[in-house]
Amino acid sequence: MRTLGNLAELIDAELIGDPEAVVRQARPFDSALEGDITFASDAAYRAKIERSAASAIIIAPPAIDSARNLLVARNPKLAFARAVGLLHGKSYTPLGVSGDLAVGEGSVLGEDLSIFPRVTIGAGSIIGDRVTLHPGVVIGEGCRVNDDTVIHPNVTIYANCEIGSRVIIHAGAVIGADGFGFVPDEEGRQVKLLQLGRVIVEDDCEVGANCTIDRGGFGDTVLRRGVKLDNLVQVGHNTELGENTVVAALTGFSGGTIVGRNCIIAGQVGTNQHITIGDRATITGQAAVTRNVKPGAVIGGIIPAEDHRRWLHKQALYSRLPRLNERVARLEEIVRRIGQAKADEE
Amino acid sequence: MRTLGNLAELIDAELIGDPEAVVRQARPFDSALEGDITFASDAAYRAKIERSAASAIIIAPPAIDSARNLLVARNPKLAFARAVGLLHGKSYTPLGVSGDLAVGEGSVLGEDLSIFPRVTIGAGSIIGDRVTLHPGVVIGEGCRVNDDTVIHPNVTIYANCEIGSRVIIHAGAVIGADGFGFVPDEEGRQVKLLQLGRVIVEDDCEVGANCTIDRGGFGDTVLRRGVKLDNLVQVGHNTELGENTVVAALTGFSGGTIVGRNCIIAGQVGTNQHITIGDRATITGQAAVTRNVKPGAVIGGIIPAEDHRRWLHKQALYSRLPRLNERVARLEEIVRRIGQAKADEE
Amino acid sequence: MRTLGNLAELIDAELIGDPEAVVRQARPFDSALEGDITFASDAAYRAKIERSAASAIIIAPPAIDSARNLLVARNPKLAFARAVGLLHGKSYTPLGVSGDLAVGEGSVLGEDLSIFPRVTIGAGSIIGDRVTLHPGVVIGEGCRVNDDTVIHPNVTIYANCEIGSRVIIHAGAVIGADGFGFVPDEEGRQVKLLQLGRVIVEDDCEVGANCTIDRGGFGDTVLRRGVKLDNLVQVGHNTELGENTVVAALTGFSGGTIVGRNCIIAGQVGTNQHITIGDRATITGQAAVTRNVKPGAVIGGIIPAEDHRRWLHKQALYSRLPRLNERVARLEEIVRRIGQAKADEE
Repeated sequence: MRTLGNLAELIDAELIGDPEAVVRQARPFDSALEGDITFASDAAYRAKIERSAASAIIIAPPAIDSARNLLVARNPKLAFARAVGLLHGKSYTPLGVSGDLAVGEGSVLGEDLSIFPRVTIGAGSIIGDRVTLHPGVVIGEGCRVNDDTVIHPNVTIYANCEIGSRVIIHAGAVIGADGFGFVPDEEGRQVKLLQLGRVIVEDDCEVGANCTIDRGGFGDTVLRRGVKLDNLVQVGHNTELGENTVVAALTGFSGGTIVGRNCIIAGQVGTNQHITIGDRATITGQAAVTRNVKPGAVIGGIIPAEDHRRWLHKQALYSRLPRLNERVARLEEIVRRIGQAKADEE
Repeated sequence: MRTLGNLAELIDAELIGDPEAVVRQARPFDSALEGDITFASDAAYRAKIERSAASAIIIAPPAIDSARNLLVARNPKLAFARAVGLLHGKSYTPLGVSGDLAVGEGSVLGEDLSIFPRVTIGAGSIIGDRVTLHPGVVIGEGCRVNDDTVIHPNVTIYANCEIGSRVIIHAGAVIGADGFGFVPDEEGRQVKLLQLGRVIVEDDCEVGANCTIDRGGFGDTVLRRGVKLDNLVQVGHNTELGENTVVAALTGFSGGTIVGRNCIIAGQVGTNQHITIGDRATITGQAAVTRNVKPGAVIGGIIPAEDHRRWLHKQALYSRLPRLNERVARLEEIVRRIGQAKADEE
Repeated sequence: MRTLGNLAELIDAELIGDPEAVVRQARPFDSALEGDITFASDAAYRAKIERSAASAIIIAPPAIDSARNLLVARNPKLAFARAVGLLHGKSYTPLGVSGDLAVGEGSVLGEDLSIFPRVTIGAGSIIGDRVTLHPGVVIGEGCRVNDDTVIHPNVTIYANCEIGSRVIIHAGAVIGADGFGFVPDEEGRQVKLLQLGRVIVEDDCEVGANCTIDRGGFGDTVLRRGVKLDNLVQVGHNTELGENTVVAALTGFSGGTIVGRNCIIAGQVGTNQHITIGDRATITGQAAVTRNVKPGAVIGGIIPAEDHRRWLHKQALYSRLPRLNERVARLEEIVRRIGQAKADEE
């Protein structure tokens, strides 16, 4: 529960209305009731402000005359996200360390921890302050997990990986499994190339449920500060994802992919090995990234789903593109000859 | 072990043969032996009935003259699935509650449970009767798991989620992790939009291994009664999957996708955010669903794999489509002028 | 630490240099220092050999005059992989069996085991010698895990599965969950077809993190000797992957796919049900395998990602392929008629 005056200051908005009015919850525009703060994301919602029951509405400039309490913010969605955090975020309370913690020799545990039952920490690992380890978390030897990080249930972190501060790792994620490196021998058997590197997840990253981030072969796989991965993302060995880059679900980065900062990678994207993607690039869904991508580029390519029969028809024509190409070339030749004949006549 | 008379009644088939004959197992046509029941899925198998060693064969109408025991059913595959269930299904026997159950305050456990070692249940959760929780299952605070549900090993269910009756959740699935919601701030850092909704999995659903079903941002993510997910399916926040819809492996639903009932969604499909897919629609494999889909529609679109060189050739032509289009336009113009000149001559 | 003489013998290379020289580590060419062995993968690296600080360099024949210690091997990458294994591989030391092992009746445990805390083994299972089971591993009833196999944390193996010798299963993988088999009933409800088969993982396989390998419906799902799966791979029921076949991340095999030996399957590939892929075939990334693939074939097909607008333009032209086809047909007709008229004139 917060007053609008307090909230406006914290979310960096200009209040037009009653600074003593109180809001308890944040809710989307269509479901906001009295006591709620909401936001008008576009002109359509802006037109409905007078009809909203919300106690306060965040809008983009310019301000308007209204019977409602308005908070004017340059980026209303961002201001709303911050309001949600302020109204609904829970402050951290340490729950202590479960008596059944299995911890290896030489490990160092920080203060004010929340370690649930059935957690395992290997030898020589360092756990920072206010870290939360949910049930079933397994941390290997020689790892480091910094302050205020939350690791959800059944996450596995292999040996010698480093996790920054304020990181969130969702359930089932696997960090530091071996990269996929094999060399076929004379008989076609796959000889394992040992994977000797680490995974480094820097501060403020979030890793989605059941993601897999492989350790480097030599050298490291790195998620720079503020990277956010959706669920089921595969990060191959020696891949580096730049600061603040976001990656949607089921995307796979082949080994050695270098992604810049502030990129947006949509879902089910795949990259070839050793691709470089520049800063601020956007890759649309299901794209096959086969070449380097320039900074700021917007890159994609799929066949959008359509009526199956219509697609079959087009697909048949696509299959006959070589033939169509030849037909056009022949037409050009005939037409050229007609023109020639004409010129000769004249 | 059942008599054919009993079985015919239970699977709703007409028996032509000996009601006292006994079958012990169900097996596919080609491997069925004496004591087995099998089914003839098509005309090819129907032609081989006399040569089968099976003790009983389920066929579609019409009945035929045969030395075999036949069970005539309108949908032989369905009748067979039911026979398999009757002959091979195990009746539930409660195994009790492991002494090491870690359970939070205020939780309520039903009767006749099977709770294996190393299960964790958060505070204020309600577990119904005859629920099976395998080792490593972690259930958060304030959850509800209804009667006869089976949760396989190492599944994580976050706080405040609801799982219906007779649900099966396969190993490693993660239910209720945060939806993927971030808003970039002035410096490009991604600010987390707290995810305050829940996941509701209604009765008779089945969730495949290592699936991820995110909680709603506001409001809920919902699997309606009878939804079946294959493995590694991603269900984004606020997605709703309609009754009896089936989804194959590695498909990803973006946030806010609304899927109707009795849909068939093949593998590796991706949907754009806020797409609506109508009832009974079919989406073929790897399709990119970028627009709403009408009820009953069959929708798809891929490039079927073919010889790599042939594909490269076509791909080059596809790349030159703009040029081909111009060439055709120029031909049309020339031919038009030829026609014009001719008309002028005449 | 090994002498070059010893190493050359073990990796089957010809040493040109000092057999008593010692190497401690293996490192990539660009980062190799004194005391390291490295390899020159191509002509570009070969040209830089004299400038390398490495104590030994593996090269392909022919040998060259050099101040460096050279190891000449027909396949330098393979020789290097073996050198990495010899220098960095750790010999197995049994850690014993954790006192909290939950093990069902009638199970048999081998010798020299490393069973970490919080492992569960169901009744009637057989565990070989020198097996490593990490925390959170759950093995069902009636399973078999053979000698020298390593199972990483939070892996689930359902009942009645067989895992060979020297297998590595990475964290979070799920082996033996039910295949995806349902038959819709008269009301459109999905009736489960019980999955009665097993999973067999033969010797020397490696299964990536969070992979899912479903049990067979009837009969088994099989990974033949030496198969290597990257992370997040889905193997549907009754699929069989041939010896030494490698599969990259996020690929999904539909039920009943039969893949030959020594195949290379890239990432995010999908196969239709009951496809057969011949020995030594290569499938490129994101390919949709809709038909059988011949032995040795190289198969693929995608739209490579490109500038979004350019793609939109091409996509529009692709959409108008039926129209373009008609335009060309009309041109051909007109040109035919012009030719006809000309012939008539003459």
